[in-house]
Amino acid sequence: MTGRRQRRTGRTGRGRGVPPKVVALGGGHGLAASLAALRRITGDLTAVVTVADDGGSSGRLRSEMGVLPPGDLRKALAALCGDDEWGRTWSKVVQHRFVSGGDLHGHAVGNLLIVALWEQLNDEVAALEWVGRLLGAHGRVLPMSAVPLDLHALVRGHDPAAPDEMTTVRGQATVALTPGEVREVMLEPADPPAVPEAVQAVLDADWVVLGPGSWFSSVIPHLLVPELADALMTTRARRVLTLNLAPQPGETAGFSPQRHLEVLGRHAPKLTIDVVLADEAAVPDRDSLDEAALRLGGTVELAPVAAPDGPRHDPELLAAAYDRIFRMRGRIGPWR
Amino acid sequence: MTGRRQRRTGRTGRGRGVPPKVVALGGGHGLAASLAALRRITGDLTAVVTVADDGGSSGRLRSEMGVLPPGDLRKALAALCGDDEWGRTWSKVVQHRFVSGGDLHGHAVGNLLIVALWEQLNDEVAALEWVGRLLGAHGRVLPMSAVPLDLHALVRGHDPAAPDEMTTVRGQATVALTPGEVREVMLEPADPPAVPEAVQAVLDADWVVLGPGSWFSSVIPHLLVPELADALMTTRARRVLTLNLAPQPGETAGFSPQRHLEVLGRHAPKLTIDVVLADEAAVPDRDSLDEAALRLGGTVELAPVAAPDGPRHDPELLAAAYDRIFRMRGRIGPWR
Repeated sequence: MTGRRQRRTGRTGRGRGVPPKVVALGGGHGLAASLAALRRITGDLTAVVTVADDGGSSGRLRSEMGVLPPGDLRKALAALCGDDEWGRTWSKVVQHRFVSGGDLHGHAVGNLLIVALWEQLNDEVAALEWVGRLLGAHGRVLPMSAVPLDLHALVRGHDPAAPDEMTTVRGQATVALTPGEVREVMLEPADPPAVPEAVQAVLDADWVVLGPGSWFSSVIPHLLVPELADALMTTRARRVLTLNLAPQPGETAGFSPQRHLEVLGRHAPKLTIDVVLADEAAVPDRDSLDEAALRLGGTVELAPVAAPDGPRHDPELLAAAYDRIFRMRGRIGPWR
Repeated sequence: MTGRRQRRTGRTGRGRGVPPKVVALGGGHGLAASLAALRRITGDLTAVVTVADDGGSSGRLRSEMGVLPPGDLRKALAALCGDDEWGRTWSKVVQHRFVSGGDLHGHAVGNLLIVALWEQLNDEVAALEWVGRLLGAHGRVLPMSAVPLDLHALVRGHDPAAPDEMTTVRGQATVALTPGEVREVMLEPADPPAVPEAVQAVLDADWVVLGPGSWFSSVIPHLLVPELADALMTTRARRVLTLNLAPQPGETAGFSPQRHLEVLGRHAPKLTIDVVLADEAAVPDRDSLDEAALRLGGTVELAPVAAPDGPRHDPELLAAAYDRIFRMRGRIGPWR
């Protein structure tokens, strides 16, 4: 069946005008890039966000107030903010970071707002909906777990003097910058409850998007929340894994694209991936990547998705790539 | 002319359906009470708020970030919040105060939000309009000056051992609780610039309302901002002065109602007042109050405005009293 016929067939399924249900999982800048792209091509978008951050403003709030780290949730909400003056202004406020010589230095205002809503409403999900409404957000933002998590990593050669020794490194902020080679990450608690709305969103999705982002601290943690991992395996949605444009010093220094797939597969052996999206310029060895993708059950899709000014995803280009993938590789064809 | 004929005449002026333009000046809980009443009877309401606070969350923000103290502005905005779920929820968030063992303890979220908007927009008035829009506020809130002010007081008998000695007490939070008798308050800088929008609002008003509130730290300071004091004297608006229900320990301990008028007059000798509103139960000596009001150019209006549960103004009762005053004593008669 050609792509063209597939598209025609698709119209008899979900039909024109119904946007694909898309769930993007991740955290930090990677998820923000993903959302900035996906909001351009679907009106039914949910972000599921890691909650293991223990650094910066989030880490301080987590330890002072005993709440989920709000920073990655805030960034995801800001990435979805409305295009009008209202959305842009409140997004700037939410992203505003205090600079002072005092107690508030470094705190992002949106983090404080989210914590206040959590305390007022006593409901993590409803509170984030309120911030979404404030921003006129084009989509929903959910935490992956309703309890704050700690990320630990098993690192080989953490001490350069003992390159083969395995060390456990504790805390996401520390893991993100660890010397040595991260072999495995774990969550504590090891069996955290997923947020039911996040599980349901994955089950109801047409497409699930993993990555780009800090591989061990933003992408893989979702696979370590048992109910979320189960949903990712049993959903009827197709799964896209979007690779980073460059290895990340600390977390994935020296990792090839295929190596990213291998470590992800090692953390979720039963998970299949339908499409691996990568920028051609970031793939030195296409054959090895094809093989690694095949081992996860998927195929590689190359597209020019890098911004001209550095190793970051261009929202327009990434949107075009997702749009093409969703049209050509989906079960239900085009939506527009 | 009877009240009834006055009302009829009034209709030929501004006419039915046009709300009176009302400006309420003050700070803290007193201004919030005033606004909670006035919002019930006019759709054209402006609050002009003191900016000399140096205590609590406001004082810390002022000293850490070099901004206006936002607390009284926040309270005024919250008092004007919308009646729907949106307005009530954001008002709760804005009024939410962090409780912790750490750096954020005691900060009101709305204070942080206002400071962030000031830093983002670099425009005090526009920033407060944005918070007003967030809350669906029934009116505008303006600072009386665009620069943070310090309040000093000349106090007699500050030291109980020297009851006739005069002492200068510095800082609004200290003045509010000072032992001894406050004789005079001063601002530093002594000639602060008024916010032009506040001056214009006073000039354009039909009614200006001073008080209730902390007499020396919330009511009188407006009279010490030269441009604002000039506007209060030259405006065509009628002026109501609303008395407190009880003396305030520290600021006005032992002050009679007429004494409140005397000290106000001493700080603004040329200001005339049209109506002095007081609760009958708080006026032990009507004749003396009448005389004091007459010296300011006005007459006394007694009305039951106290809530049954303590010395605070009941919004409904206060609204009814203002409504009656505006109808009976205005230049232009009834508006509804």
